[in-house]
Amino acid sequence: MEPRLSLVTLGVADLARSIAFYEALGWKRSMTAAEGVAFFQLGPIVLSLFPDPDLAEDAGLSVRASTDFRGISLAHNVRERGEVDAVVALMERAGGTVLKRPEEKDWGGYGAYVADPDGHAWEIAWNPGFPIAEDGALTLPD
Amino acid sequence: MEPRLSLVTLGVADLARSIAFYEALGWKRSMTAAEGVAFFQLGPIVLSLFPDPDLAEDAGLSVRASTDFRGISLAHNVRERGEVDAVVALMERAGGTVLKRPEEKDWGGYGAYVADPDGHAWEIAWNPGFPIAEDGALTLPD
Repeated sequence: MEPRLSLVTLGVADLARSIAFYEALGWKRSMTAAEGVAFFQLGPIVLSLFPDPDLAEDAGLSVRASTDFRGISLAHNVRERGEVDAVVALMERAGGTVLKRPEEKDWGGYGAYVADPDGHAWEIAWNPGFPIAEDGALTLPD
Repeated sequence: MEPRLSLVTLGVADLARSIAFYEALGWKRSMTAAEGVAFFQLGPIVLSLFPDPDLAEDAGLSVRASTDFRGISLAHNVRERGEVDAVVALMERAGGTVLKRPEEKDWGGYGAYVADPDGHAWEIAWNPGFPIAEDGALTLPD
């Protein structure tokens, strides 16, 4: 099994609202003819948005009962420390909810958490120990 | 804001059990000296495993109450249709729980869902409309 993640699919309550949120970040929707779903190319992988009941049914599970923590977070790492504040501000203007304001991290970086309109938690982080290549790839140190 | 996902972090109940599961898939843990967390390089991004309470605290949220659907799924796409069955069998042997057996999909592919030990839902899919490059990158059609 090759070490690969291909897509991350977020269950959403209101597809149009969620598309508007991610487009407001400057991300571009692909395959706009596809109905009932939205895809965003994030470099070598894909973020997709899919109505919660449809995603639950697709996975053979029950719809979640709440918007509490889902036991998963997505991280968007930035190249420079100063970008953290800028990205958090952008996400807030786009309709995101700041869960944790930017702060010094005990692992030597600087970061924050912002929830998207459905409560999906994005960590916005500057981590000097995890360099980002020009093409956006993050490679762990040895 | 560059279109980028850097890491996906799964909250886990038993870190050793989860490490064993992902290692049983043939994935290689990086930075093994890091305590209380595990990292796996998945091509240009990183999968990390972190105890549920720590992740919730990190994100400023409450620990989830259940192992129900979290409103998110991760997809591992394969290159050939026949790989779906093989990967599902591998994940089952590794301790995963099959949520949906492999089946024909109305979008023209073939796929299944398997939960990891904490209930995180992985879709294993062959999608002839989403080609996978040699380096593993998935690029959406125009």
